[in-house]
Amino acid sequence: MKAGQHLSRWHVSQWFNQDTPIQPADLRGRVVLIHAFQMLCPGCVSHGLPQAVRVHSSFSSSDIAVIGLHTVFENHDAMQPHALAAFIKEYRLKFPIGVDEPSIDNPVPKTMHELRLQGTPSLILLDREGRLRANHFGMLDDLRLGTWLGRLLTEQTHEILKSESAVACDENGCRV
Amino acid sequence: MKAGQHLSRWHVSQWFNQDTPIQPADLRGRVVLIHAFQMLCPGCVSHGLPQAVRVHSSFSSSDIAVIGLHTVFENHDAMQPHALAAFIKEYRLKFPIGVDEPSIDNPVPKTMHELRLQGTPSLILLDREGRLRANHFGMLDDLRLGTWLGRLLTEQTHEILKSESAVACDENGCRV
Amino acid sequence: MKAGQHLSRWHVSQWFNQDTPIQPADLRGRVVLIHAFQMLCPGCVSHGLPQAVRVHSSFSSSDIAVIGLHTVFENHDAMQPHALAAFIKEYRLKFPIGVDEPSIDNPVPKTMHELRLQGTPSLILLDREGRLRANHFGMLDDLRLGTWLGRLLTEQTHEILKSESAVACDENGCRV
Amino acid sequence: MKAGQHLSRWHVSQWFNQDTPIQPADLRGRVVLIHAFQMLCPGCVSHGLPQAVRVHSSFSSSDIAVIGLHTVFENHDAMQPHALAAFIKEYRLKFPIGVDEPSIDNPVPKTMHELRLQGTPSLILLDREGRLRANHFGMLDDLRLGTWLGRLLTEQTHEILKSESAVACDENGCRV
Repeated sequence: MKAGQHLSRWHVSQWFNQDTPIQPADLRGRVVLIHAFQMLCPGCVSHGLPQAVRVHSSFSSSDIAVIGLHTVFENHDAMQPHALAAFIKEYRLKFPIGVDEPSIDNPVPKTMHELRLQGTPSLILLDREGRLRANHFGMLDDLRLGTWLGRLLTEQTHEILKSESAVACDENGCRV
Repeated sequence: MKAGQHLSRWHVSQWFNQDTPIQPADLRGRVVLIHAFQMLCPGCVSHGLPQAVRVHSSFSSSDIAVIGLHTVFENHDAMQPHALAAFIKEYRLKFPIGVDEPSIDNPVPKTMHELRLQGTPSLILLDREGRLRANHFGMLDDLRLGTWLGRLLTEQTHEILKSESAVACDENGCRV
Repeated sequence: MKAGQHLSRWHVSQWFNQDTPIQPADLRGRVVLIHAFQMLCPGCVSHGLPQAVRVHSSFSSSDIAVIGLHTVFENHDAMQPHALAAFIKEYRLKFPIGVDEPSIDNPVPKTMHELRLQGTPSLILLDREGRLRANHFGMLDDLRLGTWLGRLLTEQTHEILKSESAVACDENGCRV
Repeated sequence: MKAGQHLSRWHVSQWFNQDTPIQPADLRGRVVLIHAFQMLCPGCVSHGLPQAVRVHSSFSSSDIAVIGLHTVFENHDAMQPHALAAFIKEYRLKFPIGVDEPSIDNPVPKTMHELRLQGTPSLILLDREGRLRANHFGMLDDLRLGTWLGRLLTEQTHEILKSESAVACDENGCRV
């Protein structure tokens, strides 16, 4: 999936901290930060998840929606939904977290595959129109992430449409 | 000085890392981050200056100009320009740093007084048009600062003029 | 179990990073640091385990033996040995880690019960003679832990026996 | 000066946080940590001084005496005693700090020269008998420093005298 395209849906088999299933269209009008993680991924636990928590607590949920996506592609037996439930409780995570739906013939789950994520942690940003604007693998410092969020919060929709080609986003993210 | 007003000039008696004197008008077209500090202020040394260095190294100088302003309002004898020169050398600071011009009848130097800074560290942001957009006293986390920078980098000038009243900036900064 | 008493044995149902089962007597002559943890305990992952890794890498194993003890007392289903195996691999832990043997009629496992640990993380220190010298629940800073280790490394055995009553150790640790 | 030798005196031209001049003999019976620093040395401000503060607040002053030594060997004009006074006030340092006496014909001050310090920050440890036991240039982690302090706090005097040759201390410190 390329930068600028609409993310029409994700494949989530189970939600935590979210009573009814949601899809990207339900978040239209807000900037969306998706933190793709595995509960036994050290970089996710030490860096990515705390950063997602900071974003969740620093911004109004009407401006930025933070979504966790548990994209298990290894050690599947150790990261089943019941284990994720314990993890979410122990780490006191409060934002919606979806289990990326396992694929029958692929260790990589469905949404992770469609988004062509390189691993975990990965950070995906959707703009207010639901378009994929950043897809970043690995750690990202708060200064850079903040800049991306500030850009996406400020854009005027009609502006974007006109200037899309000039916005330097690719699968590695938006260049500032 | 109020948010939204143009910063017409600062009062700098001596520059370091800058051969010829500059004024805000010389930086028009760029976002300007002014870090007001004192070399013996612990919060400046531990937090504000390292953050200014991160901004300076993370962004192109054609997008964001980082300016240090040495606003000495106490311990004047210990923070004279010759001491600041040693400080800049030891801390290997590379961006332009101006000495805020002392006032004859006030321990607070001239630019600090005109900007009504509450102390050090203070972070001042000017937009590409040279208007004061944030004036923040104390520590500011990278996520929030990044968001402000992203907003200022993205704004279209004519957009701002129309929507100025809706941009929530005051003397405490721009609310995201 | 009280400070000063010999720890005669622990109850370990399975070892990782250790081919043959070991007991405290096998480590006689060395100072022993036991880090009791749960793989889904945030304070263990962020503080206790990295500290155990630092001790393991900073000292000769002939001076200090670092032992992990997986004392699962909650969320048992999510922290079975196969999940611990994945955790150890992902976090690249290299020191011996034993699974504290589950109790039939108690959620608290056997060694944790006998040592009267208050929770995880807990840090237990044995002196070169195998006596319990510290039993600390919660975080402990490196400066204090280092001091305890320095004391235990330096003690002359016959000195200890004579001065035991003067050494301020209790179930909360050795007071420096 | 070699490890194991008594430090008979330091050369201090002025004390801060200390009403009457002191010499090593006045601290006999206590372990002494001397932090040699310069107020414009980044590694001292970010690492060495905060570590000295932690030791000062973590131990009883009857066990460990923390002494600051301002060993100015560069930028002399910027680090005169009146500037150090402002620095001590701003950083709220509470332990005794002495100004190492300037030498007439050497930029390196007298005590620094006699101790053959390699630079700042340097950490010097004296045992309860006043013997030089560690002389470490650069950063030192808390775990290692704690171990050294624990050793020095635990040693029995008559033990040291007998085993001196076996204690692995040299000008780089005591090896644990």
